[in-house]
Amino acid sequence: MTDLIAQLRDIVGEAGVLTGADVAAHSDTWPPRGDCQAHALIRPASTAEVAEVMKCCHAARQPVVTHGGLTGLVRGSVTRPGDIVLSLQRMRRIENIDRDNRTMTVQAGVALQTVHEAAEEAELLFPLDLGARGSCTIGGNISTNAGGNSVIRYGMMREQVLGLEVVLADGTIVSSMNSVLKNNTGYDLKQWFIGAEGTLGIVTRAVLRLRPLPRSRNTALVAATDFDRVAGLLRTMDTALGGSLSAFEVLWNDFYRLIIGDGENHGVPLATDYPFYVLLEATGSHEDIDRQRFERALEEAFEGELIADAIVAQSEQQREDLWAIRDDIDHLVERLAPTITFDVSLDIPQMDAYVHEVRDTLTARIPGSRCVFFGHIGDGNIHPVLTVGKKEGAAVSEAKGIVYDALRKRGGVVSAEHGIGLEKRPYLGHSRSAVEIELMKTLKRTLDPHNLLNPGKIFSLQEAEQ
Amino acid sequence: MTDLIAQLRDIVGEAGVLTGADVAAHSDTWPPRGDCQAHALIRPASTAEVAEVMKCCHAARQPVVTHGGLTGLVRGSVTRPGDIVLSLQRMRRIENIDRDNRTMTVQAGVALQTVHEAAEEAELLFPLDLGARGSCTIGGNISTNAGGNSVIRYGMMREQVLGLEVVLADGTIVSSMNSVLKNNTGYDLKQWFIGAEGTLGIVTRAVLRLRPLPRSRNTALVAATDFDRVAGLLRTMDTALGGSLSAFEVLWNDFYRLIIGDGENHGVPLATDYPFYVLLEATGSHEDIDRQRFERALEEAFEGELIADAIVAQSEQQREDLWAIRDDIDHLVERLAPTITFDVSLDIPQMDAYVHEVRDTLTARIPGSRCVFFGHIGDGNIHPVLTVGKKEGAAVSEAKGIVYDALRKRGGVVSAEHGIGLEKRPYLGHSRSAVEIELMKTLKRTLDPHNLLNPGKIFSLQEAEQ
Repeated sequence: MTDLIAQLRDIVGEAGVLTGADVAAHSDTWPPRGDCQAHALIRPASTAEVAEVMKCCHAARQPVVTHGGLTGLVRGSVTRPGDIVLSLQRMRRIENIDRDNRTMTVQAGVALQTVHEAAEEAELLFPLDLGARGSCTIGGNISTNAGGNSVIRYGMMREQVLGLEVVLADGTIVSSMNSVLKNNTGYDLKQWFIGAEGTLGIVTRAVLRLRPLPRSRNTALVAATDFDRVAGLLRTMDTALGGSLSAFEVLWNDFYRLIIGDGENHGVPLATDYPFYVLLEATGSHEDIDRQRFERALEEAFEGELIADAIVAQSEQQREDLWAIRDDIDHLVERLAPTITFDVSLDIPQMDAYVHEVRDTLTARIPGSRCVFFGHIGDGNIHPVLTVGKKEGAAVSEAKGIVYDALRKRGGVVSAEHGIGLEKRPYLGHSRSAVEIELMKTLKRTLDPHNLLNPGKIFSLQEAEQ
Repeated sequence: MTDLIAQLRDIVGEAGVLTGADVAAHSDTWPPRGDCQAHALIRPASTAEVAEVMKCCHAARQPVVTHGGLTGLVRGSVTRPGDIVLSLQRMRRIENIDRDNRTMTVQAGVALQTVHEAAEEAELLFPLDLGARGSCTIGGNISTNAGGNSVIRYGMMREQVLGLEVVLADGTIVSSMNSVLKNNTGYDLKQWFIGAEGTLGIVTRAVLRLRPLPRSRNTALVAATDFDRVAGLLRTMDTALGGSLSAFEVLWNDFYRLIIGDGENHGVPLATDYPFYVLLEATGSHEDIDRQRFERALEEAFEGELIADAIVAQSEQQREDLWAIRDDIDHLVERLAPTITFDVSLDIPQMDAYVHEVRDTLTARIPGSRCVFFGHIGDGNIHPVLTVGKKEGAAVSEAKGIVYDALRKRGGVVSAEHGIGLEKRPYLGHSRSAVEIELMKTLKRTLDPHNLLNPGKIFSLQEAEQ
């Protein structure tokens, strides 16, 4: 190992190698805990250096865990003693912005928020957005196929990536830095690495697709009396808004009541006795025209008896106030602590029955448990948040089983936008067949035969990783 | 071979197997030529039958070419003597439409137009659209990652596919019939097969994503005096139309003049002396509101001196008349016959210089040659159409060399939306590196070690296929 570290020091320089207490002070998860188990942390400054590092690690059969912003929440970046961390923190340059081609070329370590700001400066939009924007990196967004707040309009991270450069386990550089929307020249290799959680290659650079910067925004909070109406509202608003619907966030009554409480924090924008609340947003190009369209769409929903009440934001402050209800996860977590949060997807027509089953089963089987629901319903994505009063133990396992088993029955998905990591590995089989998992392993074995890249994440290839 | 045919007859029934003259009467390309070289044509009626067929073919090391609608235009479905054709023509059932989930589940042999009609009946849109809609199949659209008329707004076929079922070379059924927008449970296997031109697996079923059905449409033909203004217009219109821009088709002067001619066929909607014409279309949700937005966007373009003249369609008839100019490829091909058409992509800032270089080099090196240009410029996609007065021979090869070499220099793409097939195989290396092509071959060898599925298409694994 000492020999290897010396070799790596030759490649990345003195400042690029941390060992001992300097590594232990790092974290490999979020919130930071400063308990990184890895033997060393290597910080290459270029793709060429990443490739050289991997050649050495490959020759030494050294497992490598790649680190971006560490905000994935599924223990996808945790390390074991003896692992080496490869951090992209020295590769955070925006290399190029092309306003006419509407593309941005970046190194993988750049923070999402930096990309937002650079795009806006060029009067363009990079649409992927999520809470961890200040810390998460583009490489991490790509490796986890991140979702977030505007998937309904712009798609997941996969749809924002035109070109990709990765380093394979043996140090081969695969540079597919495509910058056009249409490229059907053979297999689209980049797709293999997007969402692969660092198990197939190390993302070093990317070409990102940029969009027109919206000039207007309209936001409303509406109330609905049953889930069929929520589904009808999604259909109606998406049609009536002509493709400009950019958020459709649903808060179940239990979520809304818990956040609103006595009204002290957020006021009471709508009465607390409706079964469902929907936070709607549309982005567009003209203040007046878009406001008119938004109001007419809401009228259509009222006339169709899809909504029972509504409040439309009349200012940026009011808009922020409405979003603050949806985003007050801190308050939620505080009130329910210790919490277990989930990130599941299922067909919209199945959601109502799913939520009922989870709630009823929890109540019946785990006394004192409590579960609230909210989510990006426009994307089919629900985040159940539950508590059983304990951080770990049998009740926690049982609760997870209840949430995931009800999902499995309905063909649902145990990870919508966060990935599998170690956290959801035991449940991968709930959403993917044995044939699918075997095919994943086949690709893994082909590209990384010595199982060096983020070993044991998503699935296990060796008994030792179980 | 006779034994194998008997086995396959047992699987798919008497009506499912064609041999001898019945196969020769078939075509394996478009326009139909009735010169299919294959030994037999097998028509399974279900995924299970496809799997059984492939098990037998795998055991017999029998090469198989999958046939959809045969409209791919790159000789991706041509057969050799001794091949077997597997046709999806008996698998054209729409299994399910879910209005709330906005998904459609189909067998791969269903025609694109049938999907359009079924979606519309459910008041939804399947947005992929292209000229061959009546004959091309969903399986073919998936296997070629088809593009077409609305990529700027909705993306390629890849973006329309949520779930996929494929049969591997050894008959394994991989069923990934996901029906939600967000699914990060391990590798996204379907991405491997989309655009793989039938070389990695046989697509048998799919879950398609549907969109809101537009309620309004606005169309204009505008003229611009230089390419910088065309690029500026794209940026301006896409921003000012708030994401509703659904077509941005550019006709170079030579294309427009050739189609307009003496005005007999299409009238003369705009004078014929502008360097560029752009056919713009936006789809939306409200007749009045969208018309207002469209006119204001055009005003903004006029004020920015991006456009020199414009005609806005005032009726559905006028809209069709404008599109007829863009779509009159028959007339173009007739006037220039014999023609060679291309399907290339490159960065928008490179396009003007590219077109000039191709035109100048052709004129200088091939006397009597002629080339006109048009394309989906909003997607970075140009279709050069050229003639050298002959169907094949040295001048044709030289012309292809000129078109592709000028592209290679600029990092362009030899196939934007049609794929590689056999037609573009010699030029794959213009757009993809040796490392990329080797990685493609690695996946091919892993999934299809005996090279049975559409062998020799995209790239060659064996000297014999060169």
